[in-house]
Amino acid sequence: MAKVGIADTAFARYDMGKAAIDELKRHSSVKIERYTVPGIKDLPVACKKLFDEHKCDIVMALGMPGSKPTDKTCAHEASMGIIYCQLMTNKHIIEVFVHEDEAPDGKELAWLMDRRAREHAQNVIKLLFTPKVLEREAGTGQRQGYEDVGPARQ
Amino acid sequence: MAKVGIADTAFARYDMGKAAIDELKRHSSVKIERYTVPGIKDLPVACKKLFDEHKCDIVMALGMPGSKPTDKTCAHEASMGIIYCQLMTNKHIIEVFVHEDEAPDGKELAWLMDRRAREHAQNVIKLLFTPKVLEREAGTGQRQGYEDVGPARQ
Amino acid sequence: MAKVGIADTAFARYDMGKAAIDELKRHSSVKIERYTVPGIKDLPVACKKLFDEHKCDIVMALGMPGSKPTDKTCAHEASMGIIYCQLMTNKHIIEVFVHEDEAPDGKELAWLMDRRAREHAQNVIKLLFTPKVLEREAGTGQRQGYEDVGPARQ
Amino acid sequence: MAKVGIADTAFARYDMGKAAIDELKRHSSVKIERYTVPGIKDLPVACKKLFDEHKCDIVMALGMPGSKPTDKTCAHEASMGIIYCQLMTNKHIIEVFVHEDEAPDGKELAWLMDRRAREHAQNVIKLLFTPKVLEREAGTGQRQGYEDVGPARQ
Amino acid sequence: MAKVGIADTAFARYDMGKAAIDELKRHSSVKIERYTVPGIKDLPVACKKLFDEHKCDIVMALGMPGSKPTDKTCAHEASMGIIYCQLMTNKHIIEVFVHEDEAPDGKELAWLMDRRAREHAQNVIKLLFTPKVLEREAGTGQRQGYEDVGPARQ
Repeated sequence: MAKVGIADTAFARYDMGKAAIDELKRHSSVKIERYTVPGIKDLPVACKKLFDEHKCDIVMALGMPGSKPTDKTCAHEASMGIIYCQLMTNKHIIEVFVHEDEAPDGKELAWLMDRRAREHAQNVIKLLFTPKVLEREAGTGQRQGYEDVGPARQ
Repeated sequence: MAKVGIADTAFARYDMGKAAIDELKRHSSVKIERYTVPGIKDLPVACKKLFDEHKCDIVMALGMPGSKPTDKTCAHEASMGIIYCQLMTNKHIIEVFVHEDEAPDGKELAWLMDRRAREHAQNVIKLLFTPKVLEREAGTGQRQGYEDVGPARQ
Repeated sequence: MAKVGIADTAFARYDMGKAAIDELKRHSSVKIERYTVPGIKDLPVACKKLFDEHKCDIVMALGMPGSKPTDKTCAHEASMGIIYCQLMTNKHIIEVFVHEDEAPDGKELAWLMDRRAREHAQNVIKLLFTPKVLEREAGTGQRQGYEDVGPARQ
Repeated sequence: MAKVGIADTAFARYDMGKAAIDELKRHSSVKIERYTVPGIKDLPVACKKLFDEHKCDIVMALGMPGSKPTDKTCAHEASMGIIYCQLMTNKHIIEVFVHEDEAPDGKELAWLMDRRAREHAQNVIKLLFTPKVLEREAGTGQRQGYEDVGPARQ
Repeated sequence: MAKVGIADTAFARYDMGKAAIDELKRHSSVKIERYTVPGIKDLPVACKKLFDEHKCDIVMALGMPGSKPTDKTCAHEASMGIIYCQLMTNKHIIEVFVHEDEAPDGKELAWLMDRRAREHAQNVIKLLFTPKVLEREAGTGQRQGYEDVGPARQ
């Protein structure tokens, strides 16, 4: 049975890990390993440990970068680490970051974090079980959270 | 027979993978392995897997970074990963990125994505089969998508 | 017995290493290995040596980036190194950086550096001994230093 | 006999590779291996292949970043890859980048690209055969292309 | 006997390598290996070779980034390479960079480059022979070149 790692943070203001796990369980039969760390810069090694020590097949890295310039830099650093981790392990990490300033208020922020986590959980299921579905979506302007943009036409 | 990997995304708004494959098939006899992922940050490991698991000789990584600052950062992170992947594997990845804001509207965007994908498919063929042709183009101001700029003259 | 590495700098304007060690000793039984370097860019290799040569299980990297643009770049470079070091060793480094311009004056700066070092020492204890406590804090808007922000609600 | 790799691009608007090879041949007896790629982001792996597959002792990486912000980012990414490649191989890559906007017009651009390529070819010869000459130039404000700045004096 | 590598550049406008070597010889008995390269982006691999081929125990990387934005980017790239080199070798590189625009004129620039090189040579001696001295300086606001800032007090 495929095993999905869920790496998330105490810094984030909504429990995206819980939303992702709920979505994964509703739509697939996978084992889940959860690993919560303090902040997003702790996510890359958490992902690495989920692969190496917990034998996960794929990991979701869920985080909420704050709105200050420093927070944006932290998000960039975390993302670089997440990409290197994938290159070191030959496994996918689906990064689910919601920037705190993407939403105008706390209510919409929570909604957005929930929805993006769930839609990316769907991507995890596609990568694991139905890659041909993703191929059919190639170039169709898919988005996670807010509405899809759709394709551009010549 | 040479094998070309095509890594592309569901986020992009035009099916560059299809255009690239069409161009490759018209002008060469190569095997194709396609791998569609959600977004550009998933491309580096997709390329790595195309080399390690699917034994590709070269990969095209096709993506469309959005126009927001965050999207520009994502493109940068993906590009760094694509460069490391090449250094790890000693194989070329031809990155074909079209920024959403390079074109004034959806129609020209689609045209640009199609053309750049096709012209880079030509580069793949040159790297694989006719490197001397590329050498003759050295320093001649070649561009992919919009018109060539041409050489500067003393 | 678990061994915690403390990497800190002579550049910083408050002895965060001492604060972290005091907090760790009050709330746990761990061995401590301390390693002071000139500045934050010396921290990544100090952490690496604490893992490889001193067999630490986890490291705290404590530093105070200055307020000039160059200092911000140094902090970014150090953070990238700290993330790579974790990926190379599969061990956590809890980065405790306080930017000199986070506080309006020296007095508050010293207070903030002390408090953030101590709160992150608590995170080290949780990662080592009570990961389930961290999991319960997932998505609750925890901060180190200034007050917690708390969760956003739908 | 020492072997020098020449990695250059079809994107550049002047044939710096030719200038570098001419300069190397005038002033030394070295073997040359040339490798032309589409753009600067293809240079890092070209250098890696020149070392690993073509057994070069040193490589020149010649490129002309364009003047748009995206081009500056590409140059940065290429440079990072070129530095990693050197760390992986323990061999020098002399990066010869001329930014398109360094010169006011095409004529001066071509002149600058020619001259910088030639002066860096001289650096390659010094690194290979006369490192003591470089040591005597330490701290003397050498520049490649435009005039030397010279030393500052107390 | 400990061996210190000195990596410096022909681009810099003051012979920091000479100043560092003078300071090291006055205050310790170490062997010196000097390696001059054209510019700061050549420093990372020079350091790597000083460790791997010349068996140095520690290296000083001395450079003077220019004042243009491109120069700042080069400095950042060099610094990233210097950090990776340390992680690959588990050895310290003391980076001594003086930005050309830190000083108002050539005279003060030369003074600053001399002084910072010497003060960092002292740090090398401490790291090699008296790490406890560095530990006593933890959090005391040490600076190299201009005056120490000193500690902040609660």
